[in-house]
Amino acid sequence: MTGAAMTGPATTGAAAQLRALWSARSVAVVGASARAGSMGRLPVEFLLRYGYPGRILPVNPGASAVLGLPCYPTVSAAPGPVDLALVLVGADRVPAAVDDCIAAGVQVAIIGASGFAETGPAGAARQAELVARARAGGLRLVGPNCIGAVGVGSGQVASFSPLFGAPTTELVPGSLGFVTQSGALGYGTVSLAFQRGLGLGWIVNTGNEADVDAIEAMTAVAAEPGCAGVLGYVETLADGPGLRRLAATGLPIGLLKAGSSAAGARAAASHTAALATEDRVVDDVLRQLGISRARDVEELLDLGDAFSQPRRPAGPKVVILTTSGGSGILAADALVAHGLELAELGPQTVAGLDQIVPAFGATANPVDVTATVMADPALFGRCLSLLAQDPGVDALLACFCVLTGDDVDMLVTALAAVADAVGKPVFAARTGADHLAPDAAASLRAAGIPTFPTPARTAAALAGLYRVSQRPAPAEAVQTTARSAQAEPAAAATEPELKQLLMQAGIAVPAGRLVGGPQDAVAAVAELGGTAVLKAVVPGLLHKTDIGGVIVGVTEVTATAAYQKLAALGGAVYAEQLIDGGAEVLVGIAPTSLGQVVTLASGGVLTELIDDAVHRLLPITRADAWSMMGQWRGAAVLAGHRGRPPLDAEALADLLVAISELTSGWPPGYELDLNPVAVLPAGVAVLDAAYVTPQDRARLPVEA
Amino acid sequence: MTGAAMTGPATTGAAAQLRALWSARSVAVVGASARAGSMGRLPVEFLLRYGYPGRILPVNPGASAVLGLPCYPTVSAAPGPVDLALVLVGADRVPAAVDDCIAAGVQVAIIGASGFAETGPAGAARQAELVARARAGGLRLVGPNCIGAVGVGSGQVASFSPLFGAPTTELVPGSLGFVTQSGALGYGTVSLAFQRGLGLGWIVNTGNEADVDAIEAMTAVAAEPGCAGVLGYVETLADGPGLRRLAATGLPIGLLKAGSSAAGARAAASHTAALATEDRVVDDVLRQLGISRARDVEELLDLGDAFSQPRRPAGPKVVILTTSGGSGILAADALVAHGLELAELGPQTVAGLDQIVPAFGATANPVDVTATVMADPALFGRCLSLLAQDPGVDALLACFCVLTGDDVDMLVTALAAVADAVGKPVFAARTGADHLAPDAAASLRAAGIPTFPTPARTAAALAGLYRVSQRPAPAEAVQTTARSAQAEPAAAATEPELKQLLMQAGIAVPAGRLVGGPQDAVAAVAELGGTAVLKAVVPGLLHKTDIGGVIVGVTEVTATAAYQKLAALGGAVYAEQLIDGGAEVLVGIAPTSLGQVVTLASGGVLTELIDDAVHRLLPITRADAWSMMGQWRGAAVLAGHRGRPPLDAEALADLLVAISELTSGWPPGYELDLNPVAVLPAGVAVLDAAYVTPQDRARLPVEA
Repeated sequence: MTGAAMTGPATTGAAAQLRALWSARSVAVVGASARAGSMGRLPVEFLLRYGYPGRILPVNPGASAVLGLPCYPTVSAAPGPVDLALVLVGADRVPAAVDDCIAAGVQVAIIGASGFAETGPAGAARQAELVARARAGGLRLVGPNCIGAVGVGSGQVASFSPLFGAPTTELVPGSLGFVTQSGALGYGTVSLAFQRGLGLGWIVNTGNEADVDAIEAMTAVAAEPGCAGVLGYVETLADGPGLRRLAATGLPIGLLKAGSSAAGARAAASHTAALATEDRVVDDVLRQLGISRARDVEELLDLGDAFSQPRRPAGPKVVILTTSGGSGILAADALVAHGLELAELGPQTVAGLDQIVPAFGATANPVDVTATVMADPALFGRCLSLLAQDPGVDALLACFCVLTGDDVDMLVTALAAVADAVGKPVFAARTGADHLAPDAAASLRAAGIPTFPTPARTAAALAGLYRVSQRPAPAEAVQTTARSAQAEPAAAATEPELKQLLMQAGIAVPAGRLVGGPQDAVAAVAELGGTAVLKAVVPGLLHKTDIGGVIVGVTEVTATAAYQKLAALGGAVYAEQLIDGGAEVLVGIAPTSLGQVVTLASGGVLTELIDDAVHRLLPITRADAWSMMGQWRGAAVLAGHRGRPPLDAEALADLLVAISELTSGWPPGYELDLNPVAVLPAGVAVLDAAYVTPQDRARLPVEA
Repeated sequence: MTGAAMTGPATTGAAAQLRALWSARSVAVVGASARAGSMGRLPVEFLLRYGYPGRILPVNPGASAVLGLPCYPTVSAAPGPVDLALVLVGADRVPAAVDDCIAAGVQVAIIGASGFAETGPAGAARQAELVARARAGGLRLVGPNCIGAVGVGSGQVASFSPLFGAPTTELVPGSLGFVTQSGALGYGTVSLAFQRGLGLGWIVNTGNEADVDAIEAMTAVAAEPGCAGVLGYVETLADGPGLRRLAATGLPIGLLKAGSSAAGARAAASHTAALATEDRVVDDVLRQLGISRARDVEELLDLGDAFSQPRRPAGPKVVILTTSGGSGILAADALVAHGLELAELGPQTVAGLDQIVPAFGATANPVDVTATVMADPALFGRCLSLLAQDPGVDALLACFCVLTGDDVDMLVTALAAVADAVGKPVFAARTGADHLAPDAAASLRAAGIPTFPTPARTAAALAGLYRVSQRPAPAEAVQTTARSAQAEPAAAATEPELKQLLMQAGIAVPAGRLVGGPQDAVAAVAELGGTAVLKAVVPGLLHKTDIGGVIVGVTEVTATAAYQKLAALGGAVYAEQLIDGGAEVLVGIAPTSLGQVVTLASGGVLTELIDDAVHRLLPITRADAWSMMGQWRGAAVLAGHRGRPPLDAEALADLLVAISELTSGWPPGYELDLNPVAVLPAGVAVLDAAYVTPQDRARLPVEA
């Protein structure tokens, strides 16, 4: 690494301090040792081997030199400034080492030792104490229970991963960051990235994440000049605002979130909270923030290949170019499965292709140019150029099979030329053994053409690039309105109280009022048009339909009996206008590990039958609301169908945004169920509402 | 290949003839040429290069020798017997070549030329004429528009794929068959198989499939002695009975079916036919037959790795063994996503592990044995053995990350020993660069431990092996009963006629009768218990609720008016017992490219809202019926819920089997909708029924 990169442009506070993880002027190795095979020897060996240009400072009171470098009894005794300390002493000696680092003015200490939160409550207490100590001293901690960080460009290998000890390992520097909660899996992944020639610039293993978590480390990496994108492997994801900050860096982000199968056992009183299961919420929030989720290590690295090239698709329309019908079909299948579209070629493009491609080829998308055209560089180049210049094409996906050495140069030259000329991404699938064209991988990579062994992986990577390219512009910020000043409901607020609050916020609810007795019930039904709904109002009763607490279609004739039945449930009775027609949806809010999340799902009885809930982290924009509705499988009910009128989707979007605004100041932890909400041909109406605070939840039966 | 393999055990008719594709005593190359780069030179070159021990017979009237081999003017002029002819002349000369092959008594001719069905109607006619000619002469055709077949073990490369011309290509013989409709993609896939060391024995490219299709070729390969499994790539799949024959070979089958994104535009009058979309039907039928479906080339080859080892999981319960928490979580996620289960370890196993694994490891599944245990072969072996011997474990999945050379021997020895000892499959994920342990891949393969670069791919391959291992035993055959003798309904059969037919077959329908006028309607309602359903009976009217053709809850008071309203629709009126409660499902039958398929889905209004249809190829067994219900997402309605009684799942299974039996003799092409069927606490009742013949369909409005 050059001196310029080490001093780099100033970044703000925390991020600047974390730069020591890859751009330290000096690295202290606490617990350094010359003993062969000892953990304390490895980083010293690695820093020397990979040519780290900064000062390497072995620290060990029992040694005067390690591998020919002077060794110091403490970090404070080493010549300063010391930017990074890699602490490789046992858990019992870590607190003293941390104090030493603070005294020496170290920016970041990486704690390798295990024996903290991962071992149980006592270890967790030791870990909390350590963090408190570091924070008080202005020291940032990475780990404990981690195997270190690497600044690849400068050979700053502050890690003891066995990867760096293998005689065949070479660092492959590049423009991607990689942050991993898991050490062993993380450095295994690094080795696979290097193997495919995917260069990394910054690597951090966060381990127990006592202080710095993966999302903060990714955000710091994203602030580095020259960073083209950041990949992350995480097992816990618990900081919604942190994720928003990461997304706001504007860089392409790919995240492999493990643990989808772990049952997210969590107390849930409302339908909404039962629907907002961990893995679904993670999926939807990442979508909301324009972060691409990977489901496996290879898929994560495939995203890295996509992010490493400079071009971005302006839209989802892809043209497939192939010399094998089969590859084209597989690519088309995968594009559609990943939410991209097959571009419809313009008439000019098709006319142009018709003059080049033989009759046994195909000039519709997927375009089968045939081996004949492939054999003629001029014809092939003209095909490519026609496709790339079509305004209806956002990206090109080229499929090749048994590609032999001779074809490669022509191919790479033609693909690179067209990618440069039009600025649209060009991806390639090459389904054939490496030995058939051993230089192809490197040539294609050098030309900025991400290449994968199968059409499906190529399509998935392109879709991942599209997702991060569609991130909403910062302009489309969340609005704060008068609604946002509304305080939260009282604990154990009843349905009429909640509806009052909604109405004050400009959210439509049916007309209604409490009734004072059997006679008043008759009067109320008359006021409400002669047919009404009567409901029991029992504080703390969440699912009142289950116990007959709602009577629909009450007339003046039946009002007295209905009143008496409901009053017998032990609370007040509420009479409400009968709203008929439309479709029932659920709109709700529930607490999740990422924060308060708003949910849209099919409502009423369908909530339990149709598994179609869609989630977004609060607050949401109007674009978020439309995106929710676009993703929602139940949205079919909003369209006019079999003679029914179309329903008011605008009003549903309004409701979602209004709820987001309304609740923006409410203390977190609550569940809010608006279920059902009637979506009508004109407008919406909240037919039922329930609110549960964390305190209430402890007293309520648990859902699902 | 040895002479023994060439003569092999006798197989039945067609399969025996197709053996010429890989076990020919002689191969004629029609259109052979010595010209460098010509298509007719390549197979001669390849047969010589790869050591084919049979007779190579170049055929070309214009040459006396090709590459040192005597050349013959016709196949008939070559010394017989000629088992296989590879015909590489232009489309116009193919018919004469086929006649020549017939005259020479050739078993199979591979036709390379394009210019047939893929070019349009005229080509299709030429192709049909060719097939007629070959069939009359007892010759089987492969192709046209294909690039040949390979008997790998004997070096019988009857192909002109450039793969075999690359100087670095070496054949990797093995026990798997591979059949591919696409030539270029197929031989690209072959090159990837060889690259990973996955040996193939039999390769066939079927091209246009004028005569032999991929499924027939796969079935023939499966009959070969020593074949461990067959992989296939197909674009069209149109022969349900053929698929059943393939499955009946009992070998593991993996199928990559391309074209999931192609809109299956098909005339559909009934709900069932609208639900039975091509790709869903393929998915479900492959599941029914115990064939593993792959979605990509790598996934297909991963299945090949799984099939190539001899052990089979007896059940879905997998134990994960790891030295990296992260890998274990990813493996668990993928296992669950693919329908496998995490084994619950027995108390003895856990107690045993507790004595070996350090406190910072984990003795629950996933079992984190820690690097400490990995470093001690005896401890590691004991852990493995404890896990493998647990009766609750059906298979082991071992995860490793940065695996360096030194660890490999120990690991392979221990894994192989335990796999041999207990006969349970042991799969490995190795997430690290090849160069770190260059011999690992070959050692693990030789030990019968399929190994993949990521935990997720490992889990997917194991799940694929589980699917093919669960194929129902032949004993569980489809029954033919008295019901099977029932003829199909008359064209344009009305609901009452269909219900009569169902009732005769022992399928429950509500009591009901046609009514003769308003007075009779009142009488009928009285007979049916005082409340009934009245329905319009208008031949050809499929969706009668849409036009008000069904009136529910008719009493003696309202019967006259109801009758008059329905009679005004222009047909008869039917009065029926009102069936209340239970859940509504759809049971139906529709024609698909694979044959007549039975469908189960949520019924009534939910059919359009819930996308949960499940399909099976007819006829079905009782086990198929239960498998459908197990897969059906809507099955939740059958369980007792919120105080409702559980519904009669047995009766629904009975209905599915009864419908299969009843329709077994009906001429194909029809659609049958039983929608809704009420599933009651005791029994089921078919509430509505419609039957559409292909002739009817032409007259009806088309659904969805």
